[in-house]
Amino acid sequence: MQQGLTGAGLGKLESDTQLIELASRYHFSVVDVSAKGLVDRLGTDEALSLLEERHIRIGAIGLSVEWRKGDREFLEGLAALPAEAAAAAALGCTRCCTYILPSTDLPAAHFMAQATKRLRLCAEILGAYGIRLGLEFVGPHHLRTQWKHPFIWTMQETLDWIDAIHAPNVGLLLDAFHWHTNEMEVADIHSLKPEQIVHVHINDARDVPVQDVLDNDRLYPGEGVIDLTGFLQALDRIGYNGPVTQEILTAAAPEGSPEELAAKSRQAFDKVFGAAGLV
Amino acid sequence: MQQGLTGAGLGKLESDTQLIELASRYHFSVVDVSAKGLVDRLGTDEALSLLEERHIRIGAIGLSVEWRKGDREFLEGLAALPAEAAAAAALGCTRCCTYILPSTDLPAAHFMAQATKRLRLCAEILGAYGIRLGLEFVGPHHLRTQWKHPFIWTMQETLDWIDAIHAPNVGLLLDAFHWHTNEMEVADIHSLKPEQIVHVHINDARDVPVQDVLDNDRLYPGEGVIDLTGFLQALDRIGYNGPVTQEILTAAAPEGSPEELAAKSRQAFDKVFGAAGLV
Amino acid sequence: MQQGLTGAGLGKLESDTQLIELASRYHFSVVDVSAKGLVDRLGTDEALSLLEERHIRIGAIGLSVEWRKGDREFLEGLAALPAEAAAAAALGCTRCCTYILPSTDLPAAHFMAQATKRLRLCAEILGAYGIRLGLEFVGPHHLRTQWKHPFIWTMQETLDWIDAIHAPNVGLLLDAFHWHTNEMEVADIHSLKPEQIVHVHINDARDVPVQDVLDNDRLYPGEGVIDLTGFLQALDRIGYNGPVTQEILTAAAPEGSPEELAAKSRQAFDKVFGAAGLV
Amino acid sequence: MQQGLTGAGLGKLESDTQLIELASRYHFSVVDVSAKGLVDRLGTDEALSLLEERHIRIGAIGLSVEWRKGDREFLEGLAALPAEAAAAAALGCTRCCTYILPSTDLPAAHFMAQATKRLRLCAEILGAYGIRLGLEFVGPHHLRTQWKHPFIWTMQETLDWIDAIHAPNVGLLLDAFHWHTNEMEVADIHSLKPEQIVHVHINDARDVPVQDVLDNDRLYPGEGVIDLTGFLQALDRIGYNGPVTQEILTAAAPEGSPEELAAKSRQAFDKVFGAAGLV
Repeated sequence: MQQGLTGAGLGKLESDTQLIELASRYHFSVVDVSAKGLVDRLGTDEALSLLEERHIRIGAIGLSVEWRKGDREFLEGLAALPAEAAAAAALGCTRCCTYILPSTDLPAAHFMAQATKRLRLCAEILGAYGIRLGLEFVGPHHLRTQWKHPFIWTMQETLDWIDAIHAPNVGLLLDAFHWHTNEMEVADIHSLKPEQIVHVHINDARDVPVQDVLDNDRLYPGEGVIDLTGFLQALDRIGYNGPVTQEILTAAAPEGSPEELAAKSRQAFDKVFGAAGLV
Repeated sequence: MQQGLTGAGLGKLESDTQLIELASRYHFSVVDVSAKGLVDRLGTDEALSLLEERHIRIGAIGLSVEWRKGDREFLEGLAALPAEAAAAAALGCTRCCTYILPSTDLPAAHFMAQATKRLRLCAEILGAYGIRLGLEFVGPHHLRTQWKHPFIWTMQETLDWIDAIHAPNVGLLLDAFHWHTNEMEVADIHSLKPEQIVHVHINDARDVPVQDVLDNDRLYPGEGVIDLTGFLQALDRIGYNGPVTQEILTAAAPEGSPEELAAKSRQAFDKVFGAAGLV
Repeated sequence: MQQGLTGAGLGKLESDTQLIELASRYHFSVVDVSAKGLVDRLGTDEALSLLEERHIRIGAIGLSVEWRKGDREFLEGLAALPAEAAAAAALGCTRCCTYILPSTDLPAAHFMAQATKRLRLCAEILGAYGIRLGLEFVGPHHLRTQWKHPFIWTMQETLDWIDAIHAPNVGLLLDAFHWHTNEMEVADIHSLKPEQIVHVHINDARDVPVQDVLDNDRLYPGEGVIDLTGFLQALDRIGYNGPVTQEILTAAAPEGSPEELAAKSRQAFDKVFGAAGLV
Repeated sequence: MQQGLTGAGLGKLESDTQLIELASRYHFSVVDVSAKGLVDRLGTDEALSLLEERHIRIGAIGLSVEWRKGDREFLEGLAALPAEAAAAAALGCTRCCTYILPSTDLPAAHFMAQATKRLRLCAEILGAYGIRLGLEFVGPHHLRTQWKHPFIWTMQETLDWIDAIHAPNVGLLLDAFHWHTNEMEVADIHSLKPEQIVHVHINDARDVPVQDVLDNDRLYPGEGVIDLTGFLQALDRIGYNGPVTQEILTAAAPEGSPEELAAKSRQAFDKVFGAAGLV
């Protein structure tokens, strides 16, 4: 597996370049950033040089298309997707991810139909550039009732949705936080084939009843109660060898400089990958 | 348009042969029956002869696959679908229809994903035999809360679902009863292209507030308050020239012999098609 | 049917604006131009005003994506397609067309597989903007051996390909010249449903053996031997009511000013639509 | 990887039961047989018992649908596919394979379009039962000109076709004989992700110029010149862990009893897997 960072958990970063440099300095091999942003700022050649010099690869870009609102918003975003995908492909990135909110103000069945159509088209465009689309199910209980109607939040529902979307390049983003808040087990990961997983997020959760876990109250790996040893060992056992990037969503910015937080992240990864025997 | 009968509204019929004979005697050109049932009972050649002698065509078969329950039930039905489709094709029938209950005990979004996948596969198999799949949205208000979760019941939702299913041979079954209970207008039909309509049902509704209209309390065309003149003229204006079959769902069997009910249906059709200037 | 013009047959036009003005002056209701070109030059609002003032609609845009060469060329064009489609949609255009060369220097089966994948993605993107994709089969015999390997050129092959592409919004561009050079009959048009036809081209051919008809040696409607009466009546009979635009490909520029050629085109349309009883 | 046998190379077998017993006795874990055949003869329960007692799994069934001829033949076979797939699923088999002849008497591009449509539908049906479809490219040079028009025979062409078919459950059947006759290298296997390979065949080829290698003149693994060490090591390196079954096509029946030939096959597997360090 390729250890990596996202901006979430590193405090206030000045730029993606800083994220790449910190990741490199603290022996990560992957970052999740916008390839298009990097290419726009640096040009493709310089962006490639930066990544190569720092021995960093882009794990995943975020899906920039707004698929949760109306057709107008969707089409506006769609027009920009080929350029997003082309930039990712130019920088060697083969993953694009988006998350699924577990409830919605829209009628759930109708929204599911529309989202199916929209995400299929996004997947088809991404696929032309050799990029897979990862769908992240979101487990925290408070979000299941945050909006009017329940949508979907379990892994099985998401796998069934991926079947319904029916593009060959769609899979899961598996986030330890949602694995935990869905009260999933190691056996659930064993049930997957590695190619069903597009991307993995890692983080930790406080020792509170699972129904009280808040989405934006995440801890660094090893600081909480998630069985990350089981999580990582299960991923390894099924043969997953893609990126595992840290995503620490918090209500307030974490304390410390980006440098200190990157160092802390390194220690966190060493702890949990070490405990899993994966170093 | 091709005027036609279903068994619903003709009382207790002895067989599909009786339905075909009554339809013929009362100058209908179409019936909705199971092609497979006819072929199994009579053989393809005799079934064809019967239809040809009586100048009757099969408007639509029903989708025999159970797509609303579990995967096991779905796969059992799926195995029989090619033979159902082959029988329909052998008898010249190019339509297969199913209805969408407006609420469900299953989580709505997840069920939508599963139903999308299942109906797509049914459509693909039907398509190989030159048969289109018509989806019937169901409007009566009491059914919208009959099961735990609202599903979909409007024409626009159904059109969006058809987009999500994304097979080239899926369209609407437009039933006057659901047009009425959805409080739709002539303009809604004008917004359609004729090829979006796979099949049409006709019937009538009591003069009660629309939210109190019961699905199984239908009247014969012209007996109630549905603007069937507007309905039929709109279908004609957009160029729809397929079957329009009578479907009278009632709690108790209608009074009269099948012969009497067929005669009554003929009068009903003459009345409403006549009023619409379509004879 | 909506009578229309393309630039092919009007000599050297100064701009699309001139084409629109000439079409309007000579009582056409449709032109085939690049919507994106118009929007880029005039802005959406002014382009819309121009079209509205002149009572002209855009019949079809051309598919700007290069799908006949390598993946690199394809992806470059693909990135621009959403903007092309958005411009078309903004101007009310719902058709996009491309032609199929009947032979290729690439291995035919492999090219078919690649072209299938590419055109499907183009169709999916166009479909998100409400635009259909029309595929034009190309009949002239000399083109069937112009490149190394035969590809496809008949209507049935093209319909089968459309099935293989399997997007709901793909159909035929039916060009009278290719109907003629494929030695097709009125019955072939009768076999179509109107929604299978996305767009129609009209023109005429010299009185030479069909195998000697040259693709770029076209005449104005009524000047040659194509049974345009049968062609137009058949289109009318099946219910086709979309655009029929003139496309006169010639080796040398036609004689006369654009104004004179537009007047000549009007006379040509009057002649052949008149003969078909369609005025 | 799971070592396995097919009937091809074992002489005249009395039944699939004999194949299963021989495979078991000679320490293979997989056989390629018709699941439907087994279920029809023994019933599902007894078939399952036989496989479990002998510690044998079914590697792949053959695609029973005729997709290379006309629509009639295709549809006849299609009707039987769900039962074939259901039998395979009931016996735990998740693979179905078919081979691609490298030339055809049909026009190549048109046949590619039709075959794309047909194999997609087969794949969709198989997918509903959890079964993947493996396409076997066929390399021997003499078959490339055996019929009128070249079709496809390389791995890259086949991968592009799989993209065009565009069902999520289609991949390659990689046969050592076709890897050899296509003059492929270890690097070609390295370029694959393991999930792109549905199934693997193993065998060997005589020491003759590659253009003279005959499809039905195959040797047992280790008897010929194919770099099976490189082949197997490459499969292992990319993480392929599915079945590798022996397929020895020969003009005349091989000498020896099925028992002797099974023993010979065991020695052959021990030799080549041993040389690859995979035991």
